[in-house]
Amino acid sequence: MKELLSPASVAIVGASDDPAKTTGRPLRFLRAAGFQGRVYPVNPNRDTVQGERAWPRIDALPETPDHAYIVAPTDAALDALESCGKRGVRVATVLADGFGEAGDEGRRREERLRAIVAQTGIRVIGPSSLGVVNVRERLLLTANAAFAEPDLPQGSIFVASQSGTMIGSIVSRGKARGIGFAGLVSVGNEVDLGVGEVCESTLDDPSVTGYLLFLETLRKAAYLRRFALAAAARGKAIVAYKLGRSAAGAQLAITHTGALAGEDDVAEAFFRECGIARVHTLDGLIEGLPLVSRIPMAPRDKPRVAVITTTGGGAAMVVDQLGVRGIDVAATIDLTLAGTRYDVMKAALDEQLASRSLDLVIAVPGSSARYEPHLAVRPVIDSAKARVPLAAFVVPDAPEALAMLTAAGVPNFRTPEACADVVAAAFSRRLTQGHPCVGRDPEARAERTLDEMDSYRVLARLGLRHASAEALDASLKHAQAYPVAVKALSASLPHKSDRGGVVLDVANADELREAIRRIRANTGAERFLVQEMASGIAEALVGYRVDPQVGPIVMLAAGGVLAEMRRERSIRLAPVDLGIAREMVREVAGLRVLQGYRGRPAGDAEALAAALVAISQLALDATVVEAEVNPMRVLEEGRGVVAVDALVSMTSPR
Amino acid sequence: MKELLSPASVAIVGASDDPAKTTGRPLRFLRAAGFQGRVYPVNPNRDTVQGERAWPRIDALPETPDHAYIVAPTDAALDALESCGKRGVRVATVLADGFGEAGDEGRRREERLRAIVAQTGIRVIGPSSLGVVNVRERLLLTANAAFAEPDLPQGSIFVASQSGTMIGSIVSRGKARGIGFAGLVSVGNEVDLGVGEVCESTLDDPSVTGYLLFLETLRKAAYLRRFALAAAARGKAIVAYKLGRSAAGAQLAITHTGALAGEDDVAEAFFRECGIARVHTLDGLIEGLPLVSRIPMAPRDKPRVAVITTTGGGAAMVVDQLGVRGIDVAATIDLTLAGTRYDVMKAALDEQLASRSLDLVIAVPGSSARYEPHLAVRPVIDSAKARVPLAAFVVPDAPEALAMLTAAGVPNFRTPEACADVVAAAFSRRLTQGHPCVGRDPEARAERTLDEMDSYRVLARLGLRHASAEALDASLKHAQAYPVAVKALSASLPHKSDRGGVVLDVANADELREAIRRIRANTGAERFLVQEMASGIAEALVGYRVDPQVGPIVMLAAGGVLAEMRRERSIRLAPVDLGIAREMVREVAGLRVLQGYRGRPAGDAEALAAALVAISQLALDATVVEAEVNPMRVLEEGRGVVAVDALVSMTSPR
Repeated sequence: MKELLSPASVAIVGASDDPAKTTGRPLRFLRAAGFQGRVYPVNPNRDTVQGERAWPRIDALPETPDHAYIVAPTDAALDALESCGKRGVRVATVLADGFGEAGDEGRRREERLRAIVAQTGIRVIGPSSLGVVNVRERLLLTANAAFAEPDLPQGSIFVASQSGTMIGSIVSRGKARGIGFAGLVSVGNEVDLGVGEVCESTLDDPSVTGYLLFLETLRKAAYLRRFALAAAARGKAIVAYKLGRSAAGAQLAITHTGALAGEDDVAEAFFRECGIARVHTLDGLIEGLPLVSRIPMAPRDKPRVAVITTTGGGAAMVVDQLGVRGIDVAATIDLTLAGTRYDVMKAALDEQLASRSLDLVIAVPGSSARYEPHLAVRPVIDSAKARVPLAAFVVPDAPEALAMLTAAGVPNFRTPEACADVVAAAFSRRLTQGHPCVGRDPEARAERTLDEMDSYRVLARLGLRHASAEALDASLKHAQAYPVAVKALSASLPHKSDRGGVVLDVANADELREAIRRIRANTGAERFLVQEMASGIAEALVGYRVDPQVGPIVMLAAGGVLAEMRRERSIRLAPVDLGIAREMVREVAGLRVLQGYRGRPAGDAEALAAALVAISQLALDATVVEAEVNPMRVLEEGRGVVAVDALVSMTSPR
Repeated sequence: MKELLSPASVAIVGASDDPAKTTGRPLRFLRAAGFQGRVYPVNPNRDTVQGERAWPRIDALPETPDHAYIVAPTDAALDALESCGKRGVRVATVLADGFGEAGDEGRRREERLRAIVAQTGIRVIGPSSLGVVNVRERLLLTANAAFAEPDLPQGSIFVASQSGTMIGSIVSRGKARGIGFAGLVSVGNEVDLGVGEVCESTLDDPSVTGYLLFLETLRKAAYLRRFALAAAARGKAIVAYKLGRSAAGAQLAITHTGALAGEDDVAEAFFRECGIARVHTLDGLIEGLPLVSRIPMAPRDKPRVAVITTTGGGAAMVVDQLGVRGIDVAATIDLTLAGTRYDVMKAALDEQLASRSLDLVIAVPGSSARYEPHLAVRPVIDSAKARVPLAAFVVPDAPEALAMLTAAGVPNFRTPEACADVVAAAFSRRLTQGHPCVGRDPEARAERTLDEMDSYRVLARLGLRHASAEALDASLKHAQAYPVAVKALSASLPHKSDRGGVVLDVANADELREAIRRIRANTGAERFLVQEMASGIAEALVGYRVDPQVGPIVMLAAGGVLAEMRRERSIRLAPVDLGIAREMVREVAGLRVLQGYRGRPAGDAEALAAALVAISQLALDATVVEAEVNPMRVLEEGRGVVAVDALVSMTSPR
């Protein structure tokens, strides 16, 4: 897709004669920047556009342009796209909106766009794309007003953004920090090409060394993952900012995994396991790449960070912010005023950087960074080639010091929050393998839900035990020892305990009959099971599902009403290995009781981790879309875990 | 204390002849700035200092200076302070360190400092103070290198900081944003004068309109609270940044309220109820005052915020960040490109600002703020006089737009995180009354812990019920109905259930004897009680203590092992009224079960709130230093709450 970012010729379909209009901008910007390729304004109503010869239709052009930016209104844009496709244009970028987001008519337009892509082989950026920019080649094929910017900062960062306006703000904020860009693409609605494929097309470009993504939601995750794994293999780092953190809280419903779609913690897990550093601050997005590029992808569990400062108060802000994000600083070295001398700071930095046990050193210069930047920043720059990465947070307003650090390639931060944000994001990355990353088509929900006994059978094939249980026949005879639990046995009663479908502590045959009478009255169920009663150290919710966006995921939460209400869970892409599963068990605060607490016995955390590994193997079985064990009872250490209820959904009847 | 910030004459004791030395800076800065008062360098070894006449001792001066900055080394500093006190100097600022933080010898020095204050009446800033600055009067009585800054930005913000270096960084960061300062004080260790008294001394200065505090810990909280309440009465806002957020997590131990000392959530509650906006970002500290000044102190529970933007992606960042902080945006109005026209933006702003139901409008201009700031920012400035406060977050790098907004007094933010941080901090403030704010002297722990039955008696006087219980005598006869709980009755067994001091579900007299045998064996206890067994909807931990820093506080957490391990609690200054107590009940996630959940009965949340009000009345009883009910059993709605265990500690025997 050389035609996407390095076209030899471009057409601007719908180019306006008025350079101030949105549709007049691309031509104006291309000319002002001095783009060297051939440019064809297309406008059916004018012979000239902005003083240049214009063509009435794409068919009238003297050659087939590599790339067309279609800035015409919605319906005309589709016709123009079709013409481009038929003419053999390789890539078109579409500005118009009114597609997927615009009701039934919009969806019909989207279908037509897809059909044109399928029939003609043209590839499309957008719709709703503010355009494509290649800074080095001065390809300013964009309608974003921000590209009137003089002296566009050229560099090695490639930007892909679902928000068209943000590419302009990223450029100006980068410029203010001395950060330059190789290219920027406003991907719009990603109906055809998405962030993943667009970025992928630049992977072999040696002038691109890192990626900066601004995302509103997660789309085309499989392509994004493929790109991210390939970028990691080439040592090119990715930093992403994604909206939607707060919506997660509101929409979360831990017990109904069907409601997981689009939830932020799923996206967070996805980014982490794709090796993408997801930041939570805008400054972190702008400033993050140099540090993320220096942090290896598989760091130790808890990174060891040292902070060296000349100002205790300033360093304490970074230490505090790191602590809030779960990173305890191993050592804080306050050189005080003495540290404003080059040799003192240099020696202190080098001593720490020589440490075999550190993963990162953060230098925190004080006032001298503003008044004597050569004194404060020089030793940091001179020490930055060590094996251990070195970053700087500068306490005063010190633009010159920051610029010196940036120019020298030393990761540097303007605020303690962005510094800690990026450090935490960089160290949380890990590449996991084996994840198929195929989401379930949300339209295709022809599922079959299994009843509890059938669900146990599916889980048993994975090696998961359940509490001894059997279905009852009319005789009500069974082999379980009293007391037992009695439950409705039905595939159509997923939350049976809420509906009066469960009676516990049934002590004898008389009570069993009474329990069945009550369950039948409450639920209308016709089939029943009895199950042994057993107590454990804790209860957990172990879940698996094929997420519509990211594909198979595995989930762990503490069981019980309180835990469910708290909506706290650990999520990973499936399948997981035992190391990751143990990490999940450690992450869930509500399961800390498994470690033993105030003299209580410890629970079998290892068996719970093994159960996660087992259920995550469903990722290799395309027929299961969802499986939930709730509760999974965790017994005393060494005694394992047993499923006490289970619910499995299949794509198709077996 | 006019002498603190507006002295007519100052002495610099220990002034160095070398203007580059720390001890040479104050004289250099005063002269460079053009301070108009009389300045007396004091140096026993030189006739002149930096070309000026020097005096050998404070006694040798031709007049008693109003304010002495003692920059001599530690022991000489104490001698100099004594001379100043005897001479009648009103205020001294002490640079030296080596006091409270420096072991036994340091503490002895601190005692001597206190004695000098007590004997002579001199008031002291420090030790470890980098000095005092009055920008308008060009009083740069400071050793902070940052005050070599040319063109110190003058304004109306007063800064008090426990970190001496941070006053310089606050000035430079403020300057970069067009923000000016009236004065700055590095309060050091606050052995005598603290942040509260220092700021209080400026309350009647009309040129000071707001306060910015940088705190490492909470000291002299009673003075800070007195200042904060007085500032609120005058409509002067306070923004504070305090370190120590992350340490809180590590040190927290909910069950042992004695370990609360210095915990961050206690400080957070204190700030909130003093009407201090505590921010969590450095940018928020610098940028926050204009907005906090416009938000009334007693806003509605959930503020209603509207966002008006020309760039959807930029606005979404603010909306998302507000959502993360629990503020749901009532309306987001995206004017798109059309909003870059003055009249369109102005009309949209005015329509929202006319709303009776809104508490804040946030304008989010896009690229135009960088390229046409007059277009983007003018309507915001012109609409900013409405009753509803108006703030701006500017999406691109747009220093000119930010400067225009700042100059016009319109609250504005450079990042979405700082914007949301300040909005959340401003709306969380509330002034509560009646809190005595007298901390317990941490040295004076001559307490008496009461046993469970005696603790119940103290609580009964407040109207708090307990589960029916009685102490057993040798006959073991009692009036409780079986099954009962049997417990060791001892003031020296605070965590008796962990020590085998409790047996539940005791069904008859034989089991009672056996239970007592076991408890005696486990704990050595000689006295026992029996208590009725009763079940409820939930268990809570209701605590009261006199915090060493902030005085009486009341605390609520969910009961049970899991909840304790989660370390989640709601804290308020005591006493509380029913409205605040209800808010506390709503805040504890682990108590959401009280609302009824999945058809389970609701609990008596109202009675739990009333119990909080009752226990908080201990704030009026100087003899009780700590009272904890754990668990407090919450019965079904309308049935109240009963204490099932209790622990009360007194200052002195009764």
